[in-house]
Amino acid sequence: MTNQTTIVKRQASFIQQVLSASKNQAALHPQKQIGQGQAPVNIALSKYWGKRDKVLNLPTNSSVSISLPGLGTETEISLLDSSFKNDQVSLNGKLLETDNSFVKRVSLFLNHFRKDAETVFKVDTHNTVPTAAGLASSASGYAALVLALDDLFGWELGLDNLSMLARFGSGSASRSVYPGFAIWHQGNQDDGLDSLAEPLDTIWPEFCIGLLEIDVKQKPVSSTQGMQQTVDTCDLYQAWPTQANRDVKTISQAIADKNFATLGKTAEHNALSMHATMIATWPPIVYWQPDSVASMHKIWQLRQQGIEVYFTMDAGPNLKLLFLENDRPAIQQAFSELKVIIPFENS
Amino acid sequence: MTNQTTIVKRQASFIQQVLSASKNQAALHPQKQIGQGQAPVNIALSKYWGKRDKVLNLPTNSSVSISLPGLGTETEISLLDSSFKNDQVSLNGKLLETDNSFVKRVSLFLNHFRKDAETVFKVDTHNTVPTAAGLASSASGYAALVLALDDLFGWELGLDNLSMLARFGSGSASRSVYPGFAIWHQGNQDDGLDSLAEPLDTIWPEFCIGLLEIDVKQKPVSSTQGMQQTVDTCDLYQAWPTQANRDVKTISQAIADKNFATLGKTAEHNALSMHATMIATWPPIVYWQPDSVASMHKIWQLRQQGIEVYFTMDAGPNLKLLFLENDRPAIQQAFSELKVIIPFENS
Repeated sequence: MTNQTTIVKRQASFIQQVLSASKNQAALHPQKQIGQGQAPVNIALSKYWGKRDKVLNLPTNSSVSISLPGLGTETEISLLDSSFKNDQVSLNGKLLETDNSFVKRVSLFLNHFRKDAETVFKVDTHNTVPTAAGLASSASGYAALVLALDDLFGWELGLDNLSMLARFGSGSASRSVYPGFAIWHQGNQDDGLDSLAEPLDTIWPEFCIGLLEIDVKQKPVSSTQGMQQTVDTCDLYQAWPTQANRDVKTISQAIADKNFATLGKTAEHNALSMHATMIATWPPIVYWQPDSVASMHKIWQLRQQGIEVYFTMDAGPNLKLLFLENDRPAIQQAFSELKVIIPFENS
Repeated sequence: MTNQTTIVKRQASFIQQVLSASKNQAALHPQKQIGQGQAPVNIALSKYWGKRDKVLNLPTNSSVSISLPGLGTETEISLLDSSFKNDQVSLNGKLLETDNSFVKRVSLFLNHFRKDAETVFKVDTHNTVPTAAGLASSASGYAALVLALDDLFGWELGLDNLSMLARFGSGSASRSVYPGFAIWHQGNQDDGLDSLAEPLDTIWPEFCIGLLEIDVKQKPVSSTQGMQQTVDTCDLYQAWPTQANRDVKTISQAIADKNFATLGKTAEHNALSMHATMIATWPPIVYWQPDSVASMHKIWQLRQQGIEVYFTMDAGPNLKLLFLENDRPAIQQAFSELKVIIPFENS
């Protein structure tokens, strides 16, 4: 078998096995005109950074996250008639060109869900977050797409299986099928059937996230490219998977215990360690802008003053502040431009 | 033996063995009124970061540097009469208090060179670099002090032995006894007698260093404290010694070959990797200021425009640019405040 054949076979086998749990035996026959899905973005408190298997999108380490209600993606999907040769993908109401990189990636993913070569999809996606700006719109995007496919085809798959399909589209999307805290277990199997997220059942009404936007321009290096370059050229990355898995355990326990200090410290250390692996990559990947660093120093000053605020950062220049309700006034005074999200506000 | 006794014995034995190479058999009897020494600061192209032995100041990895002529320390040392109970240490013409931390550290070092309990020194030190501002004044300081002691006591020790004594005072001082490029071999022995620097004989007249001062205030975390915290709490540090020793080999060879691109890339990657280990330490050690990051991005932009400029950074916010004479005009235009040093200008 050629390498490409092996890849296609492994991917097809993975999809087939997940869909075998479907309630609709004719898994790729639509059961309604339009399938709908919506999913929140999520912020990893312990990060996903590095793939152990690029074909099935399997990570080198587990991760844990919090979903942000009200920020995410809504997607509608339907089948087009035979007069269309290509998928019609629109983003925020605007139909995109077929050779747009976003469209190409979505179409490659949808290849796994076409009944035959003539199947063409219409995908209508609305993001309430800036695309590729550090709030991972690909996470909510693939989660919403998978939920919409489940709706269209009447699979009635459980969220665990949908998490796996979403992961196949974009790793962190595995966590975006759930509200609240979620843990993505890296899994150990070669077939990828144990690499999926599950929800953590803690409700924590006082828990706040503050979004500090430094720069919402498209990132110079994509996460996928960044993590691959890191795995390939960064010596310091060797210790990352072990640290990350330890951090996942510490943070999961801190969530269960509602131990905010431990959660905050571990999340900040984890994010800085991930960025450290990028910084120690060649060519260097430094997503930090001057204002990112200024904000970090400001946060550390606030902590010295007894205000319990921590931060995390994804593959971008923006900071996400972590704090509890009682410290919110002081933090909003220090960062007047902060957008505060309360994940369990309506719980 | 108590722990403290062991420490004192190991240190005394080390000093005694180094001084056994002295031409002056009464090694701690002054041979003149005033001993004089002067030494340059040096900039590590592959960094010293982490001690394997705190008692004898032995590093976990080798390092390689370039000395900066005209920037450094001049020191005079003499013995005081018995009316003085404490060392009299002055810095840049100002007599310092006995309980000053700089004086205490110098006196502890001088303890190894007192004939008896009554021996008290007068030390007069002039720095032409801001103290503790990222240009390692402790490196030129201990190198100059050791040279001044050699002069006072008439030891006539070789530079290899003086490099070892300087290292005992401050690790990077081992490299400051030489002009030009120097390599500090980490050594493997427990007695510390093979951990010393030696000069690399390449003369490279086109080689330029540009000092970009971001902030010359005293550092919030000393190098000694910073490297210890890193070794103690940073998982990513595990891979550092191997990377650092590989970088030393690559840079030494690049110096011998006058291969500037390899030298520049490896030095920049090495410095960023060292900073990455600090960033991944808890609590985080981020010496970078907003302007440090702005300058990095500016340098990477210049490189994209074909200007071959790299940078290195020590435990502080300042950048040291590396370039060749032919790119100097473009670089000085981009960084008008740059202080350019040509290490081999008078060679």
